[in-house]
Amino acid sequence: MSLTLLNPLDMHLHLRDGEMLANIAKESAHTFCGALIMPNLVPPVSTKEEVIAYKQRIIAAIGDETFTPYMTLFFKPSYDKAFLTSIKDEITAIKLYPAGITTNSEGGVSGFDVEELRPALEAMSELGIPLCVHGETNGFVMDREAEFVNIYEKLAHAFPKLVIIMEHITTKESVAALDRFENLYATITVHHLLITLDDVAGGMLRPHLFCKPIAKRPEDKDALLDAVLSGHPKVMFGSDSAPHPKHAKESCGCAAGVFTAPLALQILAELFDKENAALEHLQAFISGNAQRIYKLNPPAKTVRLKKQSFHVPSDYKGVVPMYAGEEIAYTIEEVNS
Amino acid sequence: MSLTLLNPLDMHLHLRDGEMLANIAKESAHTFCGALIMPNLVPPVSTKEEVIAYKQRIIAAIGDETFTPYMTLFFKPSYDKAFLTSIKDEITAIKLYPAGITTNSEGGVSGFDVEELRPALEAMSELGIPLCVHGETNGFVMDREAEFVNIYEKLAHAFPKLVIIMEHITTKESVAALDRFENLYATITVHHLLITLDDVAGGMLRPHLFCKPIAKRPEDKDALLDAVLSGHPKVMFGSDSAPHPKHAKESCGCAAGVFTAPLALQILAELFDKENAALEHLQAFISGNAQRIYKLNPPAKTVRLKKQSFHVPSDYKGVVPMYAGEEIAYTIEEVNS
Repeated sequence: MSLTLLNPLDMHLHLRDGEMLANIAKESAHTFCGALIMPNLVPPVSTKEEVIAYKQRIIAAIGDETFTPYMTLFFKPSYDKAFLTSIKDEITAIKLYPAGITTNSEGGVSGFDVEELRPALEAMSELGIPLCVHGETNGFVMDREAEFVNIYEKLAHAFPKLVIIMEHITTKESVAALDRFENLYATITVHHLLITLDDVAGGMLRPHLFCKPIAKRPEDKDALLDAVLSGHPKVMFGSDSAPHPKHAKESCGCAAGVFTAPLALQILAELFDKENAALEHLQAFISGNAQRIYKLNPPAKTVRLKKQSFHVPSDYKGVVPMYAGEEIAYTIEEVNS
Repeated sequence: MSLTLLNPLDMHLHLRDGEMLANIAKESAHTFCGALIMPNLVPPVSTKEEVIAYKQRIIAAIGDETFTPYMTLFFKPSYDKAFLTSIKDEITAIKLYPAGITTNSEGGVSGFDVEELRPALEAMSELGIPLCVHGETNGFVMDREAEFVNIYEKLAHAFPKLVIIMEHITTKESVAALDRFENLYATITVHHLLITLDDVAGGMLRPHLFCKPIAKRPEDKDALLDAVLSGHPKVMFGSDSAPHPKHAKESCGCAAGVFTAPLALQILAELFDKENAALEHLQAFISGNAQRIYKLNPPAKTVRLKKQSFHVPSDYKGVVPMYAGEEIAYTIEEVNS
């Protein structure tokens, strides 16, 4: 059995910078026609020059013209309409991080005062720039995302024309919020469709499955699966694939992030196949919804997968992927553009 | 300010065996007049000969006549009254593990059929041998203990004269169960009075705080603190201190357990002091309740603590303790017997 996906898009990808970018970006990009690139470098990507320069470094590292890096800017409340107008053509979205909530997010937003955010968010709304949000409060780790739903709703209500993407959602509360506001959308990772906190800390501690937001409860995973497999039109695939060196994951104080990009399509094919979900839903999840929501028109790229066991490498140049050393049921047969 | 504790007892201690026992038992025993020693060795301690031999190895390793190892047997449903009568004088309690629920518990109990357990538990009840239980189901990691409360209540109801100790409780549900059945008691560790899942996985992943049962929610920690600081007469200190080599904690697939025994009294002194709890409650928690519940009469040992900063070592012979490298507010001034 084989399966062809058209224009796969990863709407939430970390490529990092420097040595990690040079080493691993190619693997992350290979099976996608494009990806939304997260801006949480040190320092964060927050000027036009930085966006252009980072995009050039990405293109140089990947060396594949069939892959488009869709760039994001690190949100600051100080952005005004003149600045946003000047940068509009270089970016696909702006990413908002609450301060200190995840890797390299120290310069993010503290408090969510609508009036403080109004100038920037109204300008984005007028210019048609989507706002991507890492939606976690600084509350108890299992409650952070559900607590943030109030903030999503406040923003969605105050800026009804702003496209707001709830990034890497992990809870039934976030899934439910999708249907309450027209302008709320979401990305979902592959790992949050597969694991719960049980997989991270229910047996032995498994640092390679430790990520932010942390994997939640079984009923949360089920709500995510329901949304994805039933073809919810407002959810898009975003891997949140985040390469860290092996030693940074396996030492005391493990860094947050799961590396899935090179395996995401294979794992999704297996998941949709197992659940007898319609292939059309996978196509919409992996590309169609994102094209519609973000108004993207990527050049053609097709990926053919085959139902044939694939042995996941123990690492990709020192970065340990999800399912390292294990077998998954689908393998990439061909990538064409 | 100084503080004197009489006959401190640790009613749940792992000393392990072989090299680990030889290396680290002395440190675990030093400030206690006795401890209830867990039997989950490989193979588990389940015969009279094994109890006696393990006790002798412990005494040899510790080399301190002022410390009494109170021995436990690994529960098996096949124990009959004749066997239990023959072993009664060598043990203080019998420890029941659900199969596969924690370190070296593969030979434990599967299912909790009262009739299957009746011969052994009625004999224990008649002979006055307390039953210590690791109370977790194989459910979702955050629910395992709360789900097990039903089993505790079934056992407490079916065997009303059996002293049942809910070991290392971590949830408000277990605290509440204490007051519903006269014959239910509990041990509480020092780490579960101090940490929640946030400390284990809310920031970076901290393997040295990973244990079973896993630390739960803030309201659970608060319920444990309330019980301990208010002097609940049915709760006893049991460290569940569990030494693992540094590499086994810091590598992928980290072993479960927090090493606290050498610091437990100092940390408890700081905790009771900070909360303005009466010293008498600390004395009951650390010794009085256990003496009454287990009918123990340990030889006199006094530990004097001083409010003076103590720098916790980075490791004790290769075993990393809780608060490694940090300062705690109390230090051991003198141990007398």
